[in-house]
Amino acid sequence: MTITNSQSRDRLGRSPRSPGALLRALLAEPGPTLVMGAHDGLSARIAAEAGFPALWASGLCMSTALGVRDSDEASWTELLGMVARVVEASALPVLVDGDTGYGNFNTARRFVTRAERIGAAGVCLEDKVFPKMNSFVGDGHVLAPVAEFGGKLAACRDALRDPDFMIVARTEALIAGAGLAEALDRAEAYRLAGADAVFIHSRKPTVTEIAEFARAWEGRLPLLIAPTTYHATPLEEFARLGLSGVIWANQSMRAAVTAMKRACHSLWAEGPVSLEPTIASLDEVFDLMRYQDLADDEKRYEARGQDGA
Amino acid sequence: MTITNSQSRDRLGRSPRSPGALLRALLAEPGPTLVMGAHDGLSARIAAEAGFPALWASGLCMSTALGVRDSDEASWTELLGMVARVVEASALPVLVDGDTGYGNFNTARRFVTRAERIGAAGVCLEDKVFPKMNSFVGDGHVLAPVAEFGGKLAACRDALRDPDFMIVARTEALIAGAGLAEALDRAEAYRLAGADAVFIHSRKPTVTEIAEFARAWEGRLPLLIAPTTYHATPLEEFARLGLSGVIWANQSMRAAVTAMKRACHSLWAEGPVSLEPTIASLDEVFDLMRYQDLADDEKRYEARGQDGA
Amino acid sequence: MTITNSQSRDRLGRSPRSPGALLRALLAEPGPTLVMGAHDGLSARIAAEAGFPALWASGLCMSTALGVRDSDEASWTELLGMVARVVEASALPVLVDGDTGYGNFNTARRFVTRAERIGAAGVCLEDKVFPKMNSFVGDGHVLAPVAEFGGKLAACRDALRDPDFMIVARTEALIAGAGLAEALDRAEAYRLAGADAVFIHSRKPTVTEIAEFARAWEGRLPLLIAPTTYHATPLEEFARLGLSGVIWANQSMRAAVTAMKRACHSLWAEGPVSLEPTIASLDEVFDLMRYQDLADDEKRYEARGQDGA
Amino acid sequence: MTITNSQSRDRLGRSPRSPGALLRALLAEPGPTLVMGAHDGLSARIAAEAGFPALWASGLCMSTALGVRDSDEASWTELLGMVARVVEASALPVLVDGDTGYGNFNTARRFVTRAERIGAAGVCLEDKVFPKMNSFVGDGHVLAPVAEFGGKLAACRDALRDPDFMIVARTEALIAGAGLAEALDRAEAYRLAGADAVFIHSRKPTVTEIAEFARAWEGRLPLLIAPTTYHATPLEEFARLGLSGVIWANQSMRAAVTAMKRACHSLWAEGPVSLEPTIASLDEVFDLMRYQDLADDEKRYEARGQDGA
Repeated sequence: MTITNSQSRDRLGRSPRSPGALLRALLAEPGPTLVMGAHDGLSARIAAEAGFPALWASGLCMSTALGVRDSDEASWTELLGMVARVVEASALPVLVDGDTGYGNFNTARRFVTRAERIGAAGVCLEDKVFPKMNSFVGDGHVLAPVAEFGGKLAACRDALRDPDFMIVARTEALIAGAGLAEALDRAEAYRLAGADAVFIHSRKPTVTEIAEFARAWEGRLPLLIAPTTYHATPLEEFARLGLSGVIWANQSMRAAVTAMKRACHSLWAEGPVSLEPTIASLDEVFDLMRYQDLADDEKRYEARGQDGA
Repeated sequence: MTITNSQSRDRLGRSPRSPGALLRALLAEPGPTLVMGAHDGLSARIAAEAGFPALWASGLCMSTALGVRDSDEASWTELLGMVARVVEASALPVLVDGDTGYGNFNTARRFVTRAERIGAAGVCLEDKVFPKMNSFVGDGHVLAPVAEFGGKLAACRDALRDPDFMIVARTEALIAGAGLAEALDRAEAYRLAGADAVFIHSRKPTVTEIAEFARAWEGRLPLLIAPTTYHATPLEEFARLGLSGVIWANQSMRAAVTAMKRACHSLWAEGPVSLEPTIASLDEVFDLMRYQDLADDEKRYEARGQDGA
Repeated sequence: MTITNSQSRDRLGRSPRSPGALLRALLAEPGPTLVMGAHDGLSARIAAEAGFPALWASGLCMSTALGVRDSDEASWTELLGMVARVVEASALPVLVDGDTGYGNFNTARRFVTRAERIGAAGVCLEDKVFPKMNSFVGDGHVLAPVAEFGGKLAACRDALRDPDFMIVARTEALIAGAGLAEALDRAEAYRLAGADAVFIHSRKPTVTEIAEFARAWEGRLPLLIAPTTYHATPLEEFARLGLSGVIWANQSMRAAVTAMKRACHSLWAEGPVSLEPTIASLDEVFDLMRYQDLADDEKRYEARGQDGA
Repeated sequence: MTITNSQSRDRLGRSPRSPGALLRALLAEPGPTLVMGAHDGLSARIAAEAGFPALWASGLCMSTALGVRDSDEASWTELLGMVARVVEASALPVLVDGDTGYGNFNTARRFVTRAERIGAAGVCLEDKVFPKMNSFVGDGHVLAPVAEFGGKLAACRDALRDPDFMIVARTEALIAGAGLAEALDRAEAYRLAGADAVFIHSRKPTVTEIAEFARAWEGRLPLLIAPTTYHATPLEEFARLGLSGVIWANQSMRAAVTAMKRACHSLWAEGPVSLEPTIASLDEVFDLMRYQDLADDEKRYEARGQDGA
């Protein structure tokens, strides 16, 4: 695996720094850090090998992989089960999409402490009402009261063990159509409540409202975005706006959807002849999952065992 | 979802027949039934929409999705957790790859009864030693004693509730290089021990050894194959050999691997501009996961609630 | 295990009737059915051996066993994991404490369909707001709007597969101090929304308000209670009131708490000498868990295996 | 909770030292450390409150709580799910019963790294063949080849992140009737393979064979025992033998079995009248689970929320 951030690491590629410390260091570097979305162990491994320095465990993508809607249909522990697979698949720090925290301040802090325990680097919580609906669906997005959400952030902060574990506050004010001033007010309130970074979300086709927010925000805390709809914006523009993190939240899953649809239709209609040359060989899969390492380890650890058997 | 086997079904597409009965009926139809491999809820939904009548919950693919090797690295309950997502994602019968049964007759029957409970249609058990290695990797495949594996099949049969739930016995004799006669002897022993079908596995690039087996077998039980390496064989040949089921075990996962690699490399190297038009839109994902049904149900079930709130 | 309701059952003590049908039949019998609370596989097995015909998978007790508070601190899938252990531990029908349904109509129906899938007989939902607090704690119990809760019940009914699976509507009107009329109005609304039975909950030290409710209810649906605080009421009184089910919800867990406290204090203070004769022997545990059956099965299923090895 | 080992701890009673470091320090103290068995969050909380400084997550007791036999009937991840509840229930270090490691060196190291990740202090592995049978049942205990088990220990050691995480090697040589010399040879081989402590197991009614082993061992590594059958031995004798840890492995579970049996029989035969005064009140349960802390936190974190709502 390519480890892009040069730290002293052990034989297995693991850093002595905590996942939270790694993520903080990345976001503090000049220019936006590119964070790749993952939804299971496989997509995490692929993203790590491609060179990304951090992962986003996407609620939409994990839900889709599980076969359910991104409307709190999977339980928070089911999602953390998938997060654990994402975390274990590489040595990269993982920022976890924690949705609204699955209830109140108490369920939220249970989620973040469990996420910390399984090795995540941070959790992003959004200021909507539980059960939430995916931000790209419909117009019924209801914002949580500011003070309630602030209390939730504070409770999470207080419950964590590692002071470097990141709490990212995501405001859905622009998604809910509440306007720039509301978005800024909320971000500031969340900063005061203890958030370590702000995720400002937009579903506009251009970067305009993000740009307005970023300029008015003036770097009070690291700022993250997920340019799913305004993907045509050049990366240089995100750098100019002083953004700390750019999350490619769902592209990997969407690529898999298209590929699996094609594979199924091709197999169903005509069999594997034309499909076969276009898909990964099994050896490619085995390389990705490091089967050779296991064969080597069998020699190392079982040699004596076979003598004794 | 296209339901290809015409049964009376309820409003949600579910048959009154048990999953096992559905699978048996499919395998009894003339010509080989095409069974599509799935590894999570998403891949299962896609396979169902493409028209396949049955699914294979692949051990290799579920392991890969979880980020681990197909060498019993995932626990049997972790795998059943994924199987449950495959089962819930469609109304199709699901045949579960049960590997070696995760130990002895007792762990095997715990696996199959749990698989039955969560709605699977059948389990395939293979005659290797636990922990196993994927059949396409290396040359160290050790076969279990015939009688031990027969006892395992009998214990599973006795523990099941639905007499239609299928126990498929997979012999790895050809994979282990033990020859055709051994493969046939084992298949016959497993038939006598209570297997409902036989899965004969080969990793040769041509269908030759499968064809020899099939002719000598003479249809004593339904015969299944997974033509991963001998994919160039035309479907008509499988029909001529009297095969009951053809499993496309891992093509969907392999297609996803290639697509996610491309997506990650493209995003990392140049951003989303050239990638975006080649991957599923979010609306396509929302259609696949039936978000509109949820919106409709909200109107149906929450209407009165909003009046009363 | 003693099976008190005489049905034709298979070799493993399992009835051909669905769990829901078994529970309905029990509640239809004259006189109140005694339902024993359980919180894991062990407590379920013990309750079944004692003769109880049905089990209550208690939210309070499962939460306590998990080490958390009965305030939706465990996720709904964690609780269903424990429910599965309760279900698998005996052949008895299990009524599951589903709390408020963990969100809205959609999370509730996901809970009940999953409960049905793992073999439960019914789910009880209560008309409070998520996250809930245990009914015996504090005075902040907020009732859900009637119509919203009715929509939740209807959504659950529509999503189930087995028409005999029971939806029990529990009103917390008396717990919330809303009075008898409100409790009756709510119960009637829930009946009209599709509930199969009503659970009327009270935390008064006497049966008075339960009695008033029962008389006014006039048997429109089967009525269940959990006499945790009004335990001094004789069973005959419950029969006179026409109750269908009496749930001993938490006594087994509370007995275990006292016993484990004593065991720990005794071991810590003086070692095992005086404790040992007061606790179950290991053989008693092995009998309860039927280790002899496994030994017998080893002979049955491994005999041939050992010859062949 | 009473914290008996005086360390600087945070507001929530957590030590800055790793769980492994805490456990090592305890075992290094003069005299045997008393380690209390636990099988779920509740039993762990009770043991911690009674004053024990460390916990044993018992395979027998967790299996029994789940309703299955201690013969690898629960999967390793199911057991780790219970271990996580034990770990989260207190600030005490938890030594995990890892049975045989659930297969080979590879499954064993997956188990120990996952145990480390969820916050355990160490894992104990035993030198029997998978699937194992509980040491107190029957005479069919088959020892693993020494070198194979040594390779397993080495693989676990190499895979761990925290050098203080403890690998305890348990030899079943005495249980299998292989004699003292074999037990000593195995313990020495496991020490050389990297074990941090040795668990010598016996099911004799007296301490004799443990005493012989301990004298011959001469303190080469910390020695642990579980005096389930030789419980009449005074603690002073264990101190004289230089033992580092005494595990009360299953007494708490056995106490719960007796209490729950009594409760069920009493409720079934006569109702709750005579039972009620003998079991913990709900308030006692709520104290144990710290419901008041949640009420306090609601005030702290929701106050502003309610203003804003």
